[in-house]
Amino acid sequence: MAEKYYFSIPDTEVPRIVIIGGGFAGLKMARSLRSAPYQVVLIDKNNYHQFQPLFYQVAMSGLEPSSIVFPLRKAFQKQKQFYFRNAEVIKIDSGLNEVQTDRGWLAYDYLIIAIGADTNFFGNQMIADHALPMKSVSEALYLRNKILEDLESALNIRDYEERQSWIDIVIVGGGPTGVEVAGALAEMRKYILPKDYKELNPKEIDIHLIEAGPSLLAGMSELSGQKAEEFLLDMGVLVKKNTQVTSYDGKTVTMKDGSVIQSRKLIWAAGVSGNKISGLPADVIVRGNRIKVDTFCKVEGSDNIYAIGDIASMVSEAYPNAHPQVAQVALQQGQLLAKNLIRKSNGQTEKPFKYVDKGSMATIGKNKAVADLPFMKLNGFFAWLIWLAVHLLSLIGVKNKLLVFLNWIINYLTYDPSLRLIIRPRVPKKV
Amino acid sequence: MAEKYYFSIPDTEVPRIVIIGGGFAGLKMARSLRSAPYQVVLIDKNNYHQFQPLFYQVAMSGLEPSSIVFPLRKAFQKQKQFYFRNAEVIKIDSGLNEVQTDRGWLAYDYLIIAIGADTNFFGNQMIADHALPMKSVSEALYLRNKILEDLESALNIRDYEERQSWIDIVIVGGGPTGVEVAGALAEMRKYILPKDYKELNPKEIDIHLIEAGPSLLAGMSELSGQKAEEFLLDMGVLVKKNTQVTSYDGKTVTMKDGSVIQSRKLIWAAGVSGNKISGLPADVIVRGNRIKVDTFCKVEGSDNIYAIGDIASMVSEAYPNAHPQVAQVALQQGQLLAKNLIRKSNGQTEKPFKYVDKGSMATIGKNKAVADLPFMKLNGFFAWLIWLAVHLLSLIGVKNKLLVFLNWIINYLTYDPSLRLIIRPRVPKKV
Repeated sequence: MAEKYYFSIPDTEVPRIVIIGGGFAGLKMARSLRSAPYQVVLIDKNNYHQFQPLFYQVAMSGLEPSSIVFPLRKAFQKQKQFYFRNAEVIKIDSGLNEVQTDRGWLAYDYLIIAIGADTNFFGNQMIADHALPMKSVSEALYLRNKILEDLESALNIRDYEERQSWIDIVIVGGGPTGVEVAGALAEMRKYILPKDYKELNPKEIDIHLIEAGPSLLAGMSELSGQKAEEFLLDMGVLVKKNTQVTSYDGKTVTMKDGSVIQSRKLIWAAGVSGNKISGLPADVIVRGNRIKVDTFCKVEGSDNIYAIGDIASMVSEAYPNAHPQVAQVALQQGQLLAKNLIRKSNGQTEKPFKYVDKGSMATIGKNKAVADLPFMKLNGFFAWLIWLAVHLLSLIGVKNKLLVFLNWIINYLTYDPSLRLIIRPRVPKKV
Repeated sequence: MAEKYYFSIPDTEVPRIVIIGGGFAGLKMARSLRSAPYQVVLIDKNNYHQFQPLFYQVAMSGLEPSSIVFPLRKAFQKQKQFYFRNAEVIKIDSGLNEVQTDRGWLAYDYLIIAIGADTNFFGNQMIADHALPMKSVSEALYLRNKILEDLESALNIRDYEERQSWIDIVIVGGGPTGVEVAGALAEMRKYILPKDYKELNPKEIDIHLIEAGPSLLAGMSELSGQKAEEFLLDMGVLVKKNTQVTSYDGKTVTMKDGSVIQSRKLIWAAGVSGNKISGLPADVIVRGNRIKVDTFCKVEGSDNIYAIGDIASMVSEAYPNAHPQVAQVALQQGQLLAKNLIRKSNGQTEKPFKYVDKGSMATIGKNKAVADLPFMKLNGFFAWLIWLAVHLLSLIGVKNKLLVFLNWIINYLTYDPSLRLIIRPRVPKKV
């Protein structure tokens, strides 16, 4: 058996906290631990934090990836006792208190699992093989390339039916992602395509939004769901509710009722499933592949392993079906757990998690958003302004805020961003 | 035999000019043909124009790809009788006056070959397989990822020799690209690595610049070559002249004299070779895989096929060994040929090409550049300012100018851009 290869991170007098995942939960927690009496090691398979709420704008050529992701090393340049490792975790050995990654092993005193959730294809490999998910900035870029490439292809196709299949787009899932993508596509069709693709008739481009349930934005108020639907219908999106997609082979989308749509693009935003990690007992993995935690974010049956964010399933009186998988929960859990571990080191009592719901929002288009705030429900222009402000302020880094702000202003004024670039991975050369 | 599939571009009363390639030459020509009595079709395998002089800043995480590339469709939104096709040309059928692309056939009245040049590995497949070229924005991004990934890997390697091979970098070719990359790497080592990779010792990172000839910047004045070398030596770059690299297997760089350097990264900027295109007679393909043209940019032996830019080899009294393969020649040839074809349609005489050399420049680092201008030679701060101004003004698009300008200011003030992102292509998911 090969010798175990350990990360070269110095052992110090203070206990080591290993955080897996630099998303909202993990990043917030690691930052909240600055100047805490712990050594902190953050592990992520990417070297950057991704701002998920704006992936759809990357996919729609409205923003550059670099405006909504932030290098993790840069976020911690000034934090002492902090180490970053760009690696993928393979498994947890809870007996030895060690994690194995693709780049080496690492011992922990406290392990924090903040690995988030990924697209849920509900076990349908055929859909997974052909549909376009949007849960990472790479996937968003891939979707951008696909939309633009298919428009280029469509120009050279004379057969009407065949051409339609290259320009029509089907979106599955009427949650915030699906609604935002559908709205952004409708705006692209209206404002940008007539300038860039004069040879195509924008009216021929169909945008389908398919939702399995009876309403859009199921996690929000009934009013917001209805308003979002009205906005989308106004913009010419074809909304189908109570409709389940059962199969997709890259060309034909088949619904449960047997009806079909021909489309080369199926954007899949129908649900999420917790990312997998080996080494935890089977009985702590619950619905949606989430990890069961107590109100202190501690994994059931463990003393020093915690889970926070989308991967954690915490049940409380107010949330008998577990907390929603949203950024706010992740941020609040990350912060609480950091504070609790500091309290612990001071001999103080840890505090249980209590979610403060600051509301939820979705934007459909320019001047069109819906917002369920704690004190009121809003839709239209003011909801949209609040949406802009909240997202701008939540971005990490002054430069990212500035870049996104600039981009939004330019896009708002010109309706014509200049990011419609199909940048493909490099191909090695034959000499 | 399958039926020929033609692009669906309308035939009009005016003759059709087909331009292959949207680089400096092709883009300039197509734009100079606005409101000319011709239908213009521009074909490019990418949907964007690339600003080659700043590739190295993309590779060094100083600029985003989107700041230095521009969507070709957007560049022509307002030009009438213009069509863009995102396709790769397979061959020319000069008998039928048609070109074949991977997306269909197209007839032409005039054909302009502006396909540029790519990295020249001088037939060494082993080097081509393992070295890192930098002749496209995709290659620049790939190089950026490789540099950052190797730093991440190096952190986990305890063996000194082994770690060195991951952090040392070898650059082959002392032309402007090699010099600019070497300088930028030296600055990254000095200003950025100590912040981001505190666990590494910057002094241990060796940057080698290897040139086969007796001096750097061979295309420029002796003084500029010497000054560039001085700047680089000051910045701690290891410059080796009169040294030829003969082999590289991904780990070991072997020189002609038998000496070796261990490095996981070999940046190859040792020369260019014209891109290949089928269908031209063998005798018009000359040294460097360029196409022999007369002083009107016309391909020898043809009546309606022209070549401009890096792919063209034009000999004149002043340039008995053909014009240099630089942006200025490409821009001037593109403009002249457009004007000549307009003259031709008016029954006027065409004018021969006369290159106006506006000088050449290379930047080594902050406040450090060399410039051979028609009226004087400069180096240091003023050369650097001129370099900045010229490159900023040459960028296409107001937004690109603004973005690059903003980035340069931020980088200059902070020495710490936030673009050190390893964004990998999407990987399809197993459910």
